[in-house]
Amino acid sequence: MDVIQPGKLLSRIDSPSDLRKLEKSQLPDLVNELRQYIIDVVSVYGGHFGASLGVTEMTVALHYVFNTPDDQLVWDVGHQAYGHKILTGRRDNFSTNRTYKGLSGFPKRSESEYDTFGVGHSSTSISAALGMAAGSKIQNDDSRQHIAVIGDGAMTGGMAFEAMNNAGVSNSNLLIVLNDNCMSIDPNVGALKEYLTDITTSHTYNKLRDEVWKMLGKISKFGPNAQEIASKIENGLKSAILKQSNLFESLNLRYFGPIDGHDIHHMVEVLNDLKDIPGPKILHCLTVKGKGYALAEKDQTRWHAPGKFDKITGEIHKVIHDEPQAPKYQDVFGNTLVELADNDEKIVGITPAMPSGSSMNIMMKAYPDRSFDVGIAEQHAVTFSAGLATRGLTPFCNIYSSFMQRAYDQVVHDVAIQKLPVVFCLDRAGIAGADGPTHHGAYDLPYMRCLPNMVVSAPMNEEELRNLMFTASEWKEGPFTIRYPRGQGVMPQWKTKMKKVEVGKGRKVREGSDLAILSIGHIGNHALKAARILEAKDIEAAHYDMRFVKPLDEELLHEVFRNHRLVLTVEDGTVVGGFGSAILEFMAANNYASRVKLLGIPDKVVEHGTQDQLYSECGYNAEDIAKEAQILIRDYVKAL
Amino acid sequence: MDVIQPGKLLSRIDSPSDLRKLEKSQLPDLVNELRQYIIDVVSVYGGHFGASLGVTEMTVALHYVFNTPDDQLVWDVGHQAYGHKILTGRRDNFSTNRTYKGLSGFPKRSESEYDTFGVGHSSTSISAALGMAAGSKIQNDDSRQHIAVIGDGAMTGGMAFEAMNNAGVSNSNLLIVLNDNCMSIDPNVGALKEYLTDITTSHTYNKLRDEVWKMLGKISKFGPNAQEIASKIENGLKSAILKQSNLFESLNLRYFGPIDGHDIHHMVEVLNDLKDIPGPKILHCLTVKGKGYALAEKDQTRWHAPGKFDKITGEIHKVIHDEPQAPKYQDVFGNTLVELADNDEKIVGITPAMPSGSSMNIMMKAYPDRSFDVGIAEQHAVTFSAGLATRGLTPFCNIYSSFMQRAYDQVVHDVAIQKLPVVFCLDRAGIAGADGPTHHGAYDLPYMRCLPNMVVSAPMNEEELRNLMFTASEWKEGPFTIRYPRGQGVMPQWKTKMKKVEVGKGRKVREGSDLAILSIGHIGNHALKAARILEAKDIEAAHYDMRFVKPLDEELLHEVFRNHRLVLTVEDGTVVGGFGSAILEFMAANNYASRVKLLGIPDKVVEHGTQDQLYSECGYNAEDIAKEAQILIRDYVKAL
Repeated sequence: MDVIQPGKLLSRIDSPSDLRKLEKSQLPDLVNELRQYIIDVVSVYGGHFGASLGVTEMTVALHYVFNTPDDQLVWDVGHQAYGHKILTGRRDNFSTNRTYKGLSGFPKRSESEYDTFGVGHSSTSISAALGMAAGSKIQNDDSRQHIAVIGDGAMTGGMAFEAMNNAGVSNSNLLIVLNDNCMSIDPNVGALKEYLTDITTSHTYNKLRDEVWKMLGKISKFGPNAQEIASKIENGLKSAILKQSNLFESLNLRYFGPIDGHDIHHMVEVLNDLKDIPGPKILHCLTVKGKGYALAEKDQTRWHAPGKFDKITGEIHKVIHDEPQAPKYQDVFGNTLVELADNDEKIVGITPAMPSGSSMNIMMKAYPDRSFDVGIAEQHAVTFSAGLATRGLTPFCNIYSSFMQRAYDQVVHDVAIQKLPVVFCLDRAGIAGADGPTHHGAYDLPYMRCLPNMVVSAPMNEEELRNLMFTASEWKEGPFTIRYPRGQGVMPQWKTKMKKVEVGKGRKVREGSDLAILSIGHIGNHALKAARILEAKDIEAAHYDMRFVKPLDEELLHEVFRNHRLVLTVEDGTVVGGFGSAILEFMAANNYASRVKLLGIPDKVVEHGTQDQLYSECGYNAEDIAKEAQILIRDYVKAL
Repeated sequence: MDVIQPGKLLSRIDSPSDLRKLEKSQLPDLVNELRQYIIDVVSVYGGHFGASLGVTEMTVALHYVFNTPDDQLVWDVGHQAYGHKILTGRRDNFSTNRTYKGLSGFPKRSESEYDTFGVGHSSTSISAALGMAAGSKIQNDDSRQHIAVIGDGAMTGGMAFEAMNNAGVSNSNLLIVLNDNCMSIDPNVGALKEYLTDITTSHTYNKLRDEVWKMLGKISKFGPNAQEIASKIENGLKSAILKQSNLFESLNLRYFGPIDGHDIHHMVEVLNDLKDIPGPKILHCLTVKGKGYALAEKDQTRWHAPGKFDKITGEIHKVIHDEPQAPKYQDVFGNTLVELADNDEKIVGITPAMPSGSSMNIMMKAYPDRSFDVGIAEQHAVTFSAGLATRGLTPFCNIYSSFMQRAYDQVVHDVAIQKLPVVFCLDRAGIAGADGPTHHGAYDLPYMRCLPNMVVSAPMNEEELRNLMFTASEWKEGPFTIRYPRGQGVMPQWKTKMKKVEVGKGRKVREGSDLAILSIGHIGNHALKAARILEAKDIEAAHYDMRFVKPLDEELLHEVFRNHRLVLTVEDGTVVGGFGSAILEFMAANNYASRVKLLGIPDKVVEHGTQDQLYSECGYNAEDIAKEAQILIRDYVKAL
C-alpha cells in the first residue's frame, strides 16, 4: 500500500499554530488538501466520511481564528472531527484511526490537549462548553473562548435545549456553531429541522427582514407623520423580528447567520467578528454532508461511514464470500418486525434517528404509518412508546444499548414502574468494536435487570432472536428487553418459523460432567466453541444458554448447581452486577456453594478495536473461555 | 378530628360526568369549593399544596370541556393533580393521600382510569400524550383528545423539547396546556422563563402585534401606494410575528394565549374553541402558585408542601422536641459544602432546580458565583459539571437518586469514561417515603457501581457524610458518588471536625462471633440496633459499616469471610445487583462459601408510606434484621 502523502501546505502543519501562520489567501488551498487527505485516508482505511468532509472549511476556520488549545473547542458527537485531528498533530498517524491501539474515531481527552471533551453520543457539547466557560469565569479568565460545534440533528436532543436554556441566562464566552446539514446518519426529522429550513430558505425571516426594511424606507417618503410611524414600526420590528422571531433569540442567544459554511473567507471573517462579541451566541452555518466528494453528497446515508472504497470510481469495496453468510442481527430484527407486524396490527416501531443503523427502515418502508423516527431523542422515544402502550399498541422501541443510557429514567419511571408492555430491542449490546468506549453496550444487563417488572433476554442466534421477538410481542405483563450485539449472527438460513418460548426458560445446549458453562446471548457461540476445544482435551463441559437474565430459569439452575461444583458464566457485558452476579444471587438464595468464575467485560474502560480483538482483551473468546475452564479445574483439584 | 365536609356542589360530584351536568354559571362556586376542600384536607393531613391551588380553575375547566376519561388527560409531575383526584371519584378518601395503602400523591394508572399516565418526575407529559395521540390515530380514532398539562419549570427539561420537536411534525390531536406560574418548588430559572415572562408582559409579542396592526391601519390612509405597501408588510408580519416570532410556533405548534388561568369562564370558552382545532397546539395559561391562600401565594417555596398547618392562622405545625434533634442529611450536606468551599476556592455547587430540596441554597447564599441552579435539567447539570471539572474545578453536583436516572448517560459518557473528578451527591437514596415508587432511590447502587472509574460510597451518619465529602473534594482520580437518604441522621452534635478517609476502607463497628452483618450507609444504624437486639438474645453479631460499595474494602472482607460462616448484608436499595451482589462477587472471586443473605429493597415496586412502614415492608428494620439473623443461624444449625 502506498504511503498517503498530504498536500504541500498540509504537510507543514503540525499544529494549529502552523496553520495560523498561513496567509488568508492560502486557506482555500489548505482546505482542498485537507479534504483530499481525508478522502485518501478514509478510502483506504475506512471510517466516518461524509461528516468530516462537510466541516472542512469550518475546521480550518475555527483553528485559524481561535487560539486553540487555550480556547476550548468541543465537537458534538465527534465523527466529524477528522480534519480537527489532522490539523492538531495527528496527521501522520491518522491512518491508525479506529484501529486497535490507534487513534480514536472520536475526540478524546487522553489523546490530545486539543480534544477538550470526549464525545461519541450526541448533544453534549453545549453543556460541556458552557461548563468550561463558567469555569473560566470563576477563575477570572475573561478572554478565553469556548466553542461548541453541534449539528442540527444533535440539536434535537433534549440536553442541547437544557444547555441553551441555561446558557441564555449566563454571561459566558460561549459560541455555538450550528452545523446545519439536514442530516444525522439518516435525514433529520422534526419541527426544528423544518424551522431551520424555513429561516434558511428565507421565506420568512431573512427575506422579510430585508424587504420590510426596504419598504419602510419607501413609506417614510410620505411625509413627517408617516416617517414617525415608520420609525416606530421599525423599532418594533427590530425587537420583534431580530430579537424574538428567532427560536434561539427567544432563548436569549444572539443569533447570527445563516452563512455558507463552505465559504472559508467568509467563515474566517464572521468568526473573527464574533470573537469580540461577549456573551452566549450562535452562528448558523449551512453545510453539505460529504461536500467535495460528489457521490457522498448525493447519497449521504450510504456515505456516512462507507467502509473502504475506490476513491476514483467510488466503488465501495465489499468482501466477497464463497459461502452464504449469516445476516446481521439488526437485519434479522428489521425483517422479523415486519413479519410480526404483518400478522398483528397492534405492532408499531420506534427509532430515535437510527432507521438505517437499527434496520428499522425496513419497517418504515413496509408500514410508514406504524413506524416512528422521533429524532435524536431517546428519552422521548421511550415515553412516547409508553404512551402508545397505554392505548393498547405493542411498541418495539429499538435503541442501541449505550444510547439507552440516555433514556434510563424513562425506562424506570414511565415503563417499568407502570408495567407497560413496551419491547426494548437493544442493538450494539456488548463490545461495539471500532466506535470504542462510548459505544460499547457494557452496562445494560445491570441497569435493566435491577428494575422490577422487567424481562431481560438475549438471543444466542438468529432463530432465538426471532423467537424472543415473537414471544415479546405477545407478552402483556410489562416491558421486555431483548439485547443483541453489533454484527453478524451465525445462521445463513435464518428465516426459521417463529416459536413462542416460555418467559424465563433457558436451554441446555450440551451435556458435560466436568464443569458447566452458563452463557447469555450471542457470546454463547464462543462458549460452545470453547466446549469443543475442551472436548479435544478430554474435558466435558456442559453448556447452558440461559436466554433470560431475568427472570432466571431457576429449575435449570438447580440442575446446574446440583450437578456441578465448577461453573463459568460468560456474558458480553460488564461482570459488575450483570448476568454472572444474577447467578451468584441465585446461589446465595439457595445455599449453593459451587466455585463460579465470571467472564465478561472487566471493570475498566475498554478502548476501540475489532470485536474479536476486544473479546480477546476481555478474555472471553472461545480460547479464553476454554483456558479459564482448565484453570478452574486445575485450581479445584489442587485445593482438594 | 372532624370529618372534612366538601361544599354543596362538590359533594355531588362523584365523577366528571356529574361536573359536566353543571351550568357554566355554577363553575365559579365549584372552583371555590374545590379549592377550599384542598385547603381543608391538606392543612390537616399534609401533602403538596401550592401547585394544586394554582390549577383549580384549570382542573375544573379541563374536566368540564373534555370528555374524560375517553379524552386522555396527562398531568406533568402530578403533585398539582389533587383537584383532579377529588373530581374523579376520589373525593371521600382523599384524606388518605400519601399515606400507606392510601391514595398516591401523584396520578397513577392503577388507581383510576382518569389517571392515564403515572407521573412524579418532570417533563414526561408531552411525550406520553403524543404517544397516546399517535396510538389513537393508528386506530382511526380521530375524535379523541389528548391533553398534556405541563408547568413552565417542567418545560425546561430536555425531553419536553424532544417531544415538542416531534409533535410539531405530527398531525395529532394534541393539546399542551402550559401552566406558567414561574415556579417549580423554587423559582424557575433560565432563558425560557425569561422568554415566557417577555411574551406575557407583552413588551414585545402581544403589544407589538396589536400596535403594529393599528399603525398599519393608519399608514394605509396615505394613498393607494401606501396601502399596497402596508398590506405587504402586514402579510409579512403575519407570517413572521404570528408564525415565527413565537418559540412554540417555531416548533410548528399553534400557540394560543397567554390567558388568565384563574378566569374559569374564559378557560372554558378557550378550551371549547381549541377542541375543534385539529393538530398539535399549545395554550399558555398564567397562574399563581398557591392561588386563593394568601400566605401560599406570598411564600411559594415554603408552601409547596408545608406539612400540616392551621388553615385559619397559617401557622405551620412543627413537632416540638424536648431533646436536641439530629439534622437532616441534606442540611449537613449544604452546610458542609460551604465549609469546604471556605477553604478551597475550586469547589462549586450544581443543582438542577432543587436548591431548597437539596439544601444547595445554603451554598447559593454563601457563594452565589460558585453555585449553579441550571433548571430542571439533570442531563445538562451533569455534563455542565463535567465541563467545570475539565477546567480544574471541583463540582459537587447534587441530584436526588431517582432523578439521577435522568442523567445516567451523562454520568457514563461524560464523567466516568473520562475519569473526571465530579462529586455526585445523591440525596433521597433508598426508600423516599410518601412520594412513593417514582421517588424511591432504589437503583443507584447497581447503576453506579457497574461503571468503571466510579467510587460509590454511603455514610452511616453525619460525621461520615462530612468525612466523605471532604475526602471526595480531594479525590482527583475520577467521579465520587456519595448517597444518603431523605430525612434525619443520628447525631444532634453533627459539626465534627472533618477527617479524610481512605477511599475503599470500611470500618468494623462491632465485634461478634456468631455472624457478621455488613451494611452500607445510614441503614447501618438499623443493623447496629439489630446487633443489640441479638445481644439480648445471647447472639453475638459483628457489624461492619462498609462505607464504600466501590472499591470494596477487600482486606476487611477477607477478615469477615475468614471468620464468619454466616453473613447478612443490609442496604437501603434494591437487592438486585447492589451492595449485597458486590459482596457475592468478592466471595466468588476469592472462593469463599459462607452463607449470605441479602437484605434490601425486594425486586418489586414498593409503594408509598412512611419510611419506617416501608423499611418494615421491605424487611430491614432493626427487628427484621435481627429476625433474619436468627433464621440464618437456625437454618445453618439445622443443616449441620
